[in-house]
Amino acid sequence: MKYCFGVDVGGTTVKMGLFQTDSMLLDKWEIPTRKDLGEDVILSDVANAIREKMAEHGIRREDVVGIGVGVPAAVTGGGFVEQVANLGWTQKDVKKELEELTGIEVKVENDANVAALGEMWKGGGEGYRNLVMVTLGTGVGGGIIVNGQILTGTNGGGGEIGHILADRNETECCGCGKKGCLEQYASATGIARLARRKLAENSKQTILNADEVSAKTVFDAVKAGDEVATQVAEQFGAYLGYALADLGAVLDPEIFVIGGGVSKAGEILFTYVKKYYQERTFFTCKDVKFALAKLGNDAGIYGAAKLVIV
Amino acid sequence: MKYCFGVDVGGTTVKMGLFQTDSMLLDKWEIPTRKDLGEDVILSDVANAIREKMAEHGIRREDVVGIGVGVPAAVTGGGFVEQVANLGWTQKDVKKELEELTGIEVKVENDANVAALGEMWKGGGEGYRNLVMVTLGTGVGGGIIVNGQILTGTNGGGGEIGHILADRNETECCGCGKKGCLEQYASATGIARLARRKLAENSKQTILNADEVSAKTVFDAVKAGDEVATQVAEQFGAYLGYALADLGAVLDPEIFVIGGGVSKAGEILFTYVKKYYQERTFFTCKDVKFALAKLGNDAGIYGAAKLVIV
Repeated sequence: MKYCFGVDVGGTTVKMGLFQTDSMLLDKWEIPTRKDLGEDVILSDVANAIREKMAEHGIRREDVVGIGVGVPAAVTGGGFVEQVANLGWTQKDVKKELEELTGIEVKVENDANVAALGEMWKGGGEGYRNLVMVTLGTGVGGGIIVNGQILTGTNGGGGEIGHILADRNETECCGCGKKGCLEQYASATGIARLARRKLAENSKQTILNADEVSAKTVFDAVKAGDEVATQVAEQFGAYLGYALADLGAVLDPEIFVIGGGVSKAGEILFTYVKKYYQERTFFTCKDVKFALAKLGNDAGIYGAAKLVIV
Repeated sequence: MKYCFGVDVGGTTVKMGLFQTDSMLLDKWEIPTRKDLGEDVILSDVANAIREKMAEHGIRREDVVGIGVGVPAAVTGGGFVEQVANLGWTQKDVKKELEELTGIEVKVENDANVAALGEMWKGGGEGYRNLVMVTLGTGVGGGIIVNGQILTGTNGGGGEIGHILADRNETECCGCGKKGCLEQYASATGIARLARRKLAENSKQTILNADEVSAKTVFDAVKAGDEVATQVAEQFGAYLGYALADLGAVLDPEIFVIGGGVSKAGEILFTYVKKYYQERTFFTCKDVKFALAKLGNDAGIYGAAKLVIV
């Protein structure tokens, strides 16, 4: 039996998984991201954790086919990152450094792209090879898989669908500095913003409360039949549905997989997203499938492992 | 020396090229698209033309590595088209039929995608492997190349960038039946439509004449310093520039190649497109290059040939 590791480097913790190359997850664990101790500590901690885990399971180096790594940054040249403020990294060749530390082959990709690969392999997109993953969390992340491969892009910026233009008339800024990005409407914070705007202009009765509105309270209210919350869901559905229709015309995927905190609302999301998707979609992609992500926080370790399994 | 053929099937003529596999174009010619004589005639004419050309040049079958074909339709499964009204084709396995007629390996792709591949190989995108080609003609066509390969899509609909949403407030219909598609603003007909709208609401002096306005007269007037025409160019630039910024965020290409009749206006197009592209682009793709297409009507035969040259 051969083995590999999937490593998902986040700002607070590094999630790690030991897999058999037949896809079975044997062990998963986390280590803290000790980013304040100098820029070499994180990868050194990862290498030590891998070494310990190999010893614990009695796995020899020659039986490990590789280490896949997801990082919260644009990755170029197979493993280089320019700057990751979140981790205190500057101009870091993650692939080379971790290979030197472990003696094992390493592949590195952006974490959202890796999560998409994970969902394709063993999650909501299992069985498909052309997939767009949309992660609706604090922001809107994305990952594109074409013929089973991550669309990385020239500068590692492939799949940044949170920053496509959703509203030319927006007056507030997105975190990226531009105005009108999809992320401003379809993320958890975006949905809350839409709801606050709606409440400010609304005189109808509603169970929503402007002081504690969130994506969760909005969709809970939708499920309870609240009219104002339903109007917010329609707005959300139009922004995301139209954007996915554009991606359908450009990428013509087999399936859209929706993950992230907002996706906990469940299938009801699709009621609103599909309605507007179908209104706009180009005919070639009208039969695309929609699915919820299944792997949750494990998508990163699954996708990272899949990077090194051919 | 090995050879291949590039075939670009259009509604009126079939353009054909005989290439050496080192990329040299040895011969090019056209035959009429005899679509009214039954649905098998077009491919049979193509096969005969190839046979005659091989005899003329003394080329043996074993020295022909393949025939690449571009067709004005969505292509799936490597060579199947569902319906091509333009050619009278229904449920046609173009690859299989032409292989049976010629005894030579055939690859088939959508014509816009093939043109993109041609421009990558020997045109405005030569030297790049991640490219988006935008064809501004009667409509807006597109082709996406990722790592040197056409992004075909699940149903052959990859790269249909003319039908991404450019204006949610549009009231008129696009040819596809939806409202607000990029094609309604950035095609030759779209630019003329923008100009007519502008002239209808305009009271300023202008050399544009509503009765004979076209993409050409608009950009000629822009070059002559006409203020109203310049406003139209700004609108065009915003629609196309914003759309390309979205494609930048999603695909992160190295270069955008602009072709089609509108591109005859030349570098002045980029003045308007780049301005709005830069206003909206996600940071990872801000340094993307822009170039004019170089191959004109030959892009199809070049790209088709490249399909069969590994």
